[in-house]
Amino acid sequence: MKPVKIGLLGLGTVGCGTVDVLDRNAGEIARRAGRGIAVVAAAVRDLARPRGCALEGVRLTADPVAVVDDPEVEVVVELMGGTEPARELVLRAIAAGKHVVTANKALIALHGNEIFARAHERGVMVAFEAAVAGGIPIIKALREGLAGNRIEWVAGIINGTGNFILTEMRDHGRDFADVLAEAQRLGYAEADPTFDVEGIDAAHKLCILAAIAFGIPLQFDRVHVEGISGITREDVTFAGELGYRIKHLGIARRAEGGFELRVHPTLIPERRLIANVDGVMNAVLVKGDAVGPTLYYGAGAGADATASAVVADLVDVVRALTADPENRVPHLAFQPDALSDQPILPMAEVRTSFYLRLRACDRPGVLADIARVLGQHSISIEALLQREPDPDRGEATIIILTHQVREGDMHSAIAELEALEHLTSPVTRIRMEPLGR
Amino acid sequence: MKPVKIGLLGLGTVGCGTVDVLDRNAGEIARRAGRGIAVVAAAVRDLARPRGCALEGVRLTADPVAVVDDPEVEVVVELMGGTEPARELVLRAIAAGKHVVTANKALIALHGNEIFARAHERGVMVAFEAAVAGGIPIIKALREGLAGNRIEWVAGIINGTGNFILTEMRDHGRDFADVLAEAQRLGYAEADPTFDVEGIDAAHKLCILAAIAFGIPLQFDRVHVEGISGITREDVTFAGELGYRIKHLGIARRAEGGFELRVHPTLIPERRLIANVDGVMNAVLVKGDAVGPTLYYGAGAGADATASAVVADLVDVVRALTADPENRVPHLAFQPDALSDQPILPMAEVRTSFYLRLRACDRPGVLADIARVLGQHSISIEALLQREPDPDRGEATIIILTHQVREGDMHSAIAELEALEHLTSPVTRIRMEPLGR
Repeated sequence: MKPVKIGLLGLGTVGCGTVDVLDRNAGEIARRAGRGIAVVAAAVRDLARPRGCALEGVRLTADPVAVVDDPEVEVVVELMGGTEPARELVLRAIAAGKHVVTANKALIALHGNEIFARAHERGVMVAFEAAVAGGIPIIKALREGLAGNRIEWVAGIINGTGNFILTEMRDHGRDFADVLAEAQRLGYAEADPTFDVEGIDAAHKLCILAAIAFGIPLQFDRVHVEGISGITREDVTFAGELGYRIKHLGIARRAEGGFELRVHPTLIPERRLIANVDGVMNAVLVKGDAVGPTLYYGAGAGADATASAVVADLVDVVRALTADPENRVPHLAFQPDALSDQPILPMAEVRTSFYLRLRACDRPGVLADIARVLGQHSISIEALLQREPDPDRGEATIIILTHQVREGDMHSAIAELEALEHLTSPVTRIRMEPLGR
Repeated sequence: MKPVKIGLLGLGTVGCGTVDVLDRNAGEIARRAGRGIAVVAAAVRDLARPRGCALEGVRLTADPVAVVDDPEVEVVVELMGGTEPARELVLRAIAAGKHVVTANKALIALHGNEIFARAHERGVMVAFEAAVAGGIPIIKALREGLAGNRIEWVAGIINGTGNFILTEMRDHGRDFADVLAEAQRLGYAEADPTFDVEGIDAAHKLCILAAIAFGIPLQFDRVHVEGISGITREDVTFAGELGYRIKHLGIARRAEGGFELRVHPTLIPERRLIANVDGVMNAVLVKGDAVGPTLYYGAGAGADATASAVVADLVDVVRALTADPENRVPHLAFQPDALSDQPILPMAEVRTSFYLRLRACDRPGVLADIARVLGQHSISIEALLQREPDPDRGEATIIILTHQVREGDMHSAIAELEALEHLTSPVTRIRMEPLGR
């Protein structure tokens, strides 16, 4: 059989990685797919720039529209990133009846509903395994491998930069800013690290995972997002002493009356496997009603790992080329006319346990006051740790782990705590998740 | 669309679990698959025995052939276990043009080549996700999710009973026989535990994973199998002191000149995620050339977890019902005419590091003799631990970790060591695997 001909939009790290993997593993891929996959055209930003990958037989152009419109191109692989012009080019490919593979999480999270609707009308496939957790086949696992389950929750370490920073802070007792600077030197973090450390990148991915897990539309603007820049070395240490690790998690949970969608630093019991996922590695923990907890671990970024997912999507597309469109796996796992309209819950309604760190004058009655305020909001204390007061400043640090509480109640309690005259600085609060059965 | 009609062979734990999951999650499943899945017939061994699952509308019979031949049944789900009459019934279903879903690892490992050849000729699907690692979608991940990779190795904890025993031995310093008896009481181990603790069950699964990973035929009789019944509490403790955990691993590796297929107790560095997979849980670590190491973790057995995989297969089969058979995912991941004929290597050719435990009279010159024998076989020592001699018996225990060595050379060295007059008992040797990048 003749090879399938593809056109690439973008030849950066992932684009070149994809060319490399297709070339290096051409034999294995053809043995699996039953036919080859040939890159025939690629659009680049700067034609003059030298590339690190073999491009014989590839028509290079600076005009991405030319690749989309190229009559020889059967599948368009979008690896340019950003939402525009990626959105426009992907819609153009779909309108022309071409299948699309993309690694672009922002594009899918923000414009996926539109893109999938057009693709469904046109009967073409849009595959996006590489958009979440790099090389880990988590889209496939969740969408197909767990198709018999009612998914209860998904919790993932889905940003390698953030996990590298938190791992270094714990392993070497370093400060956030110090590790961030190193991550930037090593190329793990962008010059503007906002997307990674403030959780926006993770929120893009979480919104995709949630849609596939629960059969709900993509709703990026409903994701509650908190970053890790406020986590101190002190919090990491206290968490460790209490048997926990702090991880930046994306959590999607089926709750009463709706779904929770949230990205925030989280204390996890250190015995959980996901608490031991370190460095730039990613992992997604999925709890299905039948299968129980399952975990998927691997590299969440990097040229080759992302290319692994892009090529797997290409093999899937090749295999489904002749299939009746109605029988293909739905883009968001559930049939487009069967999505749920259950709402995303406001954070005030979410119930979790909390880690609280308070700094107070070392005076009699302080603990009694704190306990009274918590009690008045029906917040019960699971553990309390008081540190020797700092002799220079006469201040004590108090760590409290609470039982589960409605977030709205916790916030009222914190406001009241901060009004106590003994408290010398704002209360630090980090949510906790058991992530067990 | 009308529901797809299926017939079950076997209504034991997994059969009833499958009926339960199909019933409980009927809504979610139909939202995903676009149509329902209805059990219309089931064959049981004893019609009189009461069942724990809802069987309204299911024709029960004691004759499995009647289910296979039932003109209404479109997909036959084989959950009876064992190789006969399962093989005969599956071949009969295939001959009748019916698709098959099975959870039967022995059947696939021993008769898969024949079954897939018949299925290929007839253009029907045989799906077997539940045959390996229960609810973990590892077949799908390896066969489809990593389709862009040249797989370098696969290492899995794929028998929950064995992992439960080793975990208990470590956590509570217990003896093998003691924990085995408890596992039998808890129902984790069979009355005859040979299949689990001697590695035969793991070898069935490993042989399936290797075929899919490398594109080789199923070759169960070429798997080297060692069980865990010889592991002592002492070895578990020494391994822990040196920073290792002992796990019963199935390992398939691409090596020079062929493939390694082996099931045996293995020391793994305790920092590896897979070293921390405890109790009855399973995990499979896969190293692809593009994606790097990835890990898949979850319940490897149990009614609901296994049913999760059976139902995922059913959804896959339903989706591919109208697809051109040539374009479906090949049973063993690679096209049947593209399988490799590279051999499985004899164990003597396999290179690993070793943990050695020796017991010797506490006399001068013992260590020198041992070091001389190892040196003569070009085996270099990475670490050596000598314990205080037992005062009553005047014997010392010596633990040696070696660098990588050809297994054949290690066996010659061990034979020579055992001939030394100082040695008071046979040498214990356990292989070690770094399982890193």
